[in-house]
This record gives sequence, structure tokens and C-alpha cells, in this order.
Amino acid sequence: MNTLEVAHQIVTLCRQGKNEEAHQQLYADDAVSVEAFAPNGGNRESRGLAAIKAKGAWWRDNHVIHSASVTGPWPHGDRFIVGYQYDVTFKPSGQRMMLDEVGLYTVAHGKIVREEFFYNAG
Amino acid sequence: MNTLEVAHQIVTLCRQGKNEEAHQQLYADDAVSVEAFAPNGGNRESRGLAAIKAKGAWWRDNHVIHSASVTGPWPHGDRFIVGYQYDVTFKPSGQRMMLDEVGLYTVAHGKIVREEFFYNAG
Repeated sequence: MNTLEVAHQIVTLCRQGKNEEAHQQLYADDAVSVEAFAPNGGNRESRGLAAIKAKGAWWRDNHVIHSASVTGPWPHGDRFIVGYQYDVTFKPSGQRMMLDEVGLYTVAHGKIVREEFFYNAG
Repeated sequence: MNTLEVAHQIVTLCRQGKNEEAHQQLYADDAVSVEAFAPNGGNRESRGLAAIKAKGAWWRDNHVIHSASVTGPWPHGDRFIVGYQYDVTFKPSGQRMMLDEVGLYTVAHGKIVREEFFYNAG
């Protein structure tokens, strides 16, 4: 798949809530995922598909998703941007919140090799 | 200014339609602006503040802006993303259209040194 096809496919799968399938289908084995901030003093980077899947599993296990909106993609060369808005409850605290973030993705050889998340500070 | 202050300032100025002031205040003299696609076979890159200002002036001269929405910023390290939605008429053709793009900005020493535009392909 070219970059635009990868971009459309991740949007399609995430709109269906198939985030695990997106990781499996679209990510390179050595992909890197970078958060804007380190959760609880942890590492901002997850290196490798196994670590990225584990981060996704933790997130799904710890949040109730009330609604989700996925926007884009916005492509540019070998990169593209996708917007995510989630209305979630964080299970450990019971706190309900709106998450508004964008992902910047880099594609090489038809696979996502890097994703970087940006959080709304508006 | 740090990256987040630059990000908030460009959002504030662009919401006020003060895009020229944003260039003057916030951009490095050697900043580079990169479009996702080359207009009319031209160059995707504008190098230097003078070229960026000229591109902005051309854009303002050739569009009637019916409404504009600026969203974000979404920061991540020394970069941030801003969303732009414009309802415009392109004067030479008379065609009215919705533009939906995001800008990815890189800051160094308190100034924007690179902006890259991504266009919605959703």
C-alpha cells in the first residue's frame, strides 16, 4: 500500500474500533510510538510492535469509551495526520474526560514506522 | 517564547486574521514553508521569510474568505500542529470551496523555522 492507502485504512479501522487490527495490519515490526508527555514519569517511547500493542491493550483495558470520532487523514509525502476525539472514563479514577489528540504517522515500504501523538493545548 | 507560547500566539493571530503579523513576529528569517502539493507545477518549498510572506500575500490577494476556523494548538516537544478550515472563493476562477488543512510547525530558539501543510484527503 502507498502512504495514502495506509492513511485511509487506519482511519477506516479506527472508526470501526479495530485499533488492534490496525496495529497488526499496518505497522512495521520495528515501529516506534511516541507520546507528547510521559504518563506517570514513564517512557514517552514505545519501541517495536509488541510494545505498541501492549500500550494499546493497556489503554483499552483502562478506559470506557463513550464515543469516538476519527478525522482525516491529512497526507503530506510519506507522512499523514489523523485526528482523534474520545469521550472516555478512566477506570482507575472514574474520571470522565474528553481526549483531543492528533497522530502524525510516517510510512516506509508500505508500513507505519513511526507514530507521534500531539495533545490539544487550546 | 517557548514552543507552547509560539503555538498559542500563532493561533491567536490567525484567529484574528493577522497572518502577516504572525509571519513577522513568529518566524525565523530563514524559515522554510512546505506545501503538500506543488501548485501549478511550481515549487512545494518557500525558503526564507520574504518568500513565505510573498506566498501569503498571493493567497490573500487571490481568495475571498467567507469564514475561517483555527483549531488547536496540539504541541509535542519542539513541534506543534494547528488546524485550519477556510470557506473561500478563489478569485481567478470564481470557485467557492472548503479548505481543510493542518500545519505542522517546528520551533527553534523561540521562532518558527519550518511549517509543513497537510491537506484533508478524507
